[in-house]
Amino acid sequence: MTVPGAGKERDRLTVPQGLAALSLDALASVAYGPEAIVLVLAAAGSQGLGYTLPVTVAIVILLAALTFSYRQVIAAFPNGGGAYAVAGRHLGRRVSLIAAASLIIDYVLNVAVSVSAGVAALTSAFPSLYGDRVWICVLVLALITGVNLYGVAESAKVLILPTVVFVVAVFTVITVGLLRAHPVTEPTHVGPATETVGLLLLLKAFASGCAALTGVEAIANAVPTFRTPRVQRAQHTEIALGGLLGAMLIGLSVLIGRFRVAPNSTKTVLAQLTEASLGHNAGFYLVQFSTMALLALAANTSFGGMPVLTSLLARDHHVPHVFALRADRQVYRHGVLVLAGAALVLLVGARGDTQALVPVFAIGVFIGFTISQVGMVRHWHLERGAGWQGRALLNGVGAVLTAAATVIELIAKFSKGGWLVFLAVAVLVLLFESIHRAYQRIGRALHIGEVPGPPQERHSLVIVPVSSVNRLTQEALATALSLGDEVRAVTVAYPDDEGMPSAEPMRQAWAQWQPHVPLTVLTSPSRSLTRPIVDYLRTLEATVEHDRLVVLIPETHLPRPWQRLLQNQRGILLDHAIRQHTDVLICRLRFRLTVPR
Amino acid sequence: MTVPGAGKERDRLTVPQGLAALSLDALASVAYGPEAIVLVLAAAGSQGLGYTLPVTVAIVILLAALTFSYRQVIAAFPNGGGAYAVAGRHLGRRVSLIAAASLIIDYVLNVAVSVSAGVAALTSAFPSLYGDRVWICVLVLALITGVNLYGVAESAKVLILPTVVFVVAVFTVITVGLLRAHPVTEPTHVGPATETVGLLLLLKAFASGCAALTGVEAIANAVPTFRTPRVQRAQHTEIALGGLLGAMLIGLSVLIGRFRVAPNSTKTVLAQLTEASLGHNAGFYLVQFSTMALLALAANTSFGGMPVLTSLLARDHHVPHVFALRADRQVYRHGVLVLAGAALVLLVGARGDTQALVPVFAIGVFIGFTISQVGMVRHWHLERGAGWQGRALLNGVGAVLTAAATVIELIAKFSKGGWLVFLAVAVLVLLFESIHRAYQRIGRALHIGEVPGPPQERHSLVIVPVSSVNRLTQEALATALSLGDEVRAVTVAYPDDEGMPSAEPMRQAWAQWQPHVPLTVLTSPSRSLTRPIVDYLRTLEATVEHDRLVVLIPETHLPRPWQRLLQNQRGILLDHAIRQHTDVLICRLRFRLTVPR
Repeated sequence: MTVPGAGKERDRLTVPQGLAALSLDALASVAYGPEAIVLVLAAAGSQGLGYTLPVTVAIVILLAALTFSYRQVIAAFPNGGGAYAVAGRHLGRRVSLIAAASLIIDYVLNVAVSVSAGVAALTSAFPSLYGDRVWICVLVLALITGVNLYGVAESAKVLILPTVVFVVAVFTVITVGLLRAHPVTEPTHVGPATETVGLLLLLKAFASGCAALTGVEAIANAVPTFRTPRVQRAQHTEIALGGLLGAMLIGLSVLIGRFRVAPNSTKTVLAQLTEASLGHNAGFYLVQFSTMALLALAANTSFGGMPVLTSLLARDHHVPHVFALRADRQVYRHGVLVLAGAALVLLVGARGDTQALVPVFAIGVFIGFTISQVGMVRHWHLERGAGWQGRALLNGVGAVLTAAATVIELIAKFSKGGWLVFLAVAVLVLLFESIHRAYQRIGRALHIGEVPGPPQERHSLVIVPVSSVNRLTQEALATALSLGDEVRAVTVAYPDDEGMPSAEPMRQAWAQWQPHVPLTVLTSPSRSLTRPIVDYLRTLEATVEHDRLVVLIPETHLPRPWQRLLQNQRGILLDHAIRQHTDVLICRLRFRLTVPR
Repeated sequence: MTVPGAGKERDRLTVPQGLAALSLDALASVAYGPEAIVLVLAAAGSQGLGYTLPVTVAIVILLAALTFSYRQVIAAFPNGGGAYAVAGRHLGRRVSLIAAASLIIDYVLNVAVSVSAGVAALTSAFPSLYGDRVWICVLVLALITGVNLYGVAESAKVLILPTVVFVVAVFTVITVGLLRAHPVTEPTHVGPATETVGLLLLLKAFASGCAALTGVEAIANAVPTFRTPRVQRAQHTEIALGGLLGAMLIGLSVLIGRFRVAPNSTKTVLAQLTEASLGHNAGFYLVQFSTMALLALAANTSFGGMPVLTSLLARDHHVPHVFALRADRQVYRHGVLVLAGAALVLLVGARGDTQALVPVFAIGVFIGFTISQVGMVRHWHLERGAGWQGRALLNGVGAVLTAAATVIELIAKFSKGGWLVFLAVAVLVLLFESIHRAYQRIGRALHIGEVPGPPQERHSLVIVPVSSVNRLTQEALATALSLGDEVRAVTVAYPDDEGMPSAEPMRQAWAQWQPHVPLTVLTSPSRSLTRPIVDYLRTLEATVEHDRLVVLIPETHLPRPWQRLLQNQRGILLDHAIRQHTDVLICRLRFRLTVPR
């Protein structure tokens, strides 16, 4: 995965690379955005569908406002602002946490929506697959997850081709469609009107369509990943994104009106438009495949964005600190699995139906939009640089519009799962805060900030469990003697065939060896290794509390895994048991052994 | 679980307790043994069923021979012989391994057969459950497994009641049935004859019926668990078992002839006999329930027997040594899960049909029988004690009969899954031998048996990764100083908001503290904790190869598990990475911290 801030200068992004790496999820959203509008308007029959263009225009105006606002965010927060950083600086912790929560929810929703939309593009090309779309979704998700788990370092260059192909394809569909007088294929029949065109319906359509704007904030979040001059490059990318996205949305909505396209459960609107303008031919399949590919990549961007956000949260003690170590594979993998798991739940819950997920999608995004715009106004107000009023005004307009959009989203979608987003945001914020409090308490307990007394050296007593006299035992005692001021070996005697524990052979071997280390024999009639040793250590802990007690567990480290099954089990058992029942310091000595065949 | 050899004298077994603890699986086998005979003979219609008694008599003769043979095994191997021990002493390792393998397979099959037969008893009482029998089997198995995982220490006393109830119930059925002139219920109609009565058919019936003899060896395997005088008590128990089992088998087969009982897929033969003699009343249900209960307990005995065998195998280096520690919960649990898993596969594979499993069941048992009898002949021959010829003759007869039975089993059942038993035995034996060879190689590599040189003390260098200055750091350095001749602290600096790694705050805190321990700062632009530390340790390993290198990982040990999620992750990551890439000795210091609410 590309981890922003990680790469060297030459690995950083140019404008086209930036479009590919950071904007393809925004661009890909044209695959489901217009459809979301049509789906709502269709309730009012063909008359309703007539309003597709006006609604789209409204959305594009909002897009324009957002684009210019974010152009300013980029300038103001060259270290990658994003709602979380902006709000954190200017609107207080609580608000920044709300922003973070909504962003996390969006990362999850983006995966689910992109995957299902991608599969929808596929099933539009091969309707026979429609019945199994849920399974296909799960498959695709598994694929993306796997790629991320085993970290195929995805460079922005790889992403340019599919992005270009998709954008070109969509524009071809639009231009050809505009030049063509009549659709190649028959338009789908519009169902009977169940509603009349009213303000609420239009607002609903607008709210759903806003899903097409998701992702326009991505560039501002990742300015450091651009090649110098970072700010300018990022700004140009933002403008380019706004322009392309706007043009595609308008173009497609014009075609929708022109070809009287109506929603169809088995064939996406984009697929219908493609058929209507290009006909059902190779071009049609190409568009579907490139859509599918781009949406898969769009889903993938969440896996790149999430770790950046969680590492910021970890640095502010809002999630476990370990998330700050996002470059450690294990950490990263856990994040990937959590993200994939959440997306899986959504996909299966929505039975792979994009339009069931889209409604809730935009809400979180717009909460983020609004917060960062408001934060920007505050920012300019505090800075009061030359012409700050102008900038503040621009962000102000952005804030008002996005706020309005958010409110509309709520009204329109609350019942359609919008409440779920709210619940999720609330839960996450509470979680962040409780974690933060926990860290504060732990910090106090550790007296962080105070200067502790000097570390006091203590007499150290090292206990070495041994089972026979061999090279491993020798190595273990050598190490113990190097570490401890005092060393004792312990061995456990099990019942023999007569059922009587006997340690004679061990005692003799020890006497013969003369390692100058006392050997204590513990008996275990019940054939337990751990119990007698744990009991012994506990009595020691009770008696010699001035010493630093250490138990050194010797283990042979064998080359092959199956060989390890034969040897190291005792060590694991001891480690567990001692860890559970005592405070003794445990050292596991692995003695590398090469075994002749 | 009762772990033979573990308990105190007063916990050891008397004759009745011995019958309950060690023989109930043998007694319980009357629930499926006779049925196995009938099922084969039914192929020749009512004429075939007429041979039930003769076949049973043949089996009981074999039982008598086995009983007396094992009476001698007990005398000869008071420490719990069993086929493995006997063969090991007299027939060489390879043969003893074959015995062990077949025993293990029987433990698994005993679980599967007992569970399915128990469920069959239940479904005979409630035919409506028949359709779901597989699920019920899985449920019962899960129950037994759970009981064993969470180790309800089952004392023999608990087992007496169900055993007595079952035996009394069966004898009641027999006596009442013998006194009654005509069956209470109509006999099931016998299907048309598909075969004529021939030798092969009778042999088949005999082979299947031998499943009723499984478990008669259990007593000889566990002589040490008896109260003194062990041998006599064990011998009396063996005789008692033989007597009871024989009487029940004969009695039931007489009833089968009397009431013309024919096999019925939904109602067990025992259930039919009970109905025919007692009628369909409370008594009928009592018999079914006690059968169900006893079979569940019979399944349970495998969980008690398996660990004893595997611990013997472990002492002889044929399975991982860890199995010798059978009293350690974790070890024991792994065994339980493996046994349960294997039984689950068989149960589901056979769709919970007892009679699909029974054919293969007896084979392994009889291999064991034969091996131990042959071993006994060898034993007497070597001892040549007074009247050894008589004893040798008795075991010889046993050997011949069981060998013959085994051959018959093969001929009759090879195609019916018998080959699977063979494959399994072969695979297990090969596994045991390869493990044995591996241990020999490891032993040579460890120079076991030689006297190693005296352990040499070395200069020790302790590395302590630290992230801030606090009480944990203090504790860690104190411990490091107590252990090491030389101590160094390392800290990892991550990129700040400007993307530049900075360790200034840490450096200052350190300078202020003055712990008289040098602090090394490693930078990690990629935000990885483990990579820089691992690299540092590897360079150290390369440079100071004369020192004993130790890395001390400090961890706070917090009271609540969720708190641990917040803190100890770094330690786990470091441990993993260092373990993977270096040979450094790892010590994880857990510093108990009480966090104020």
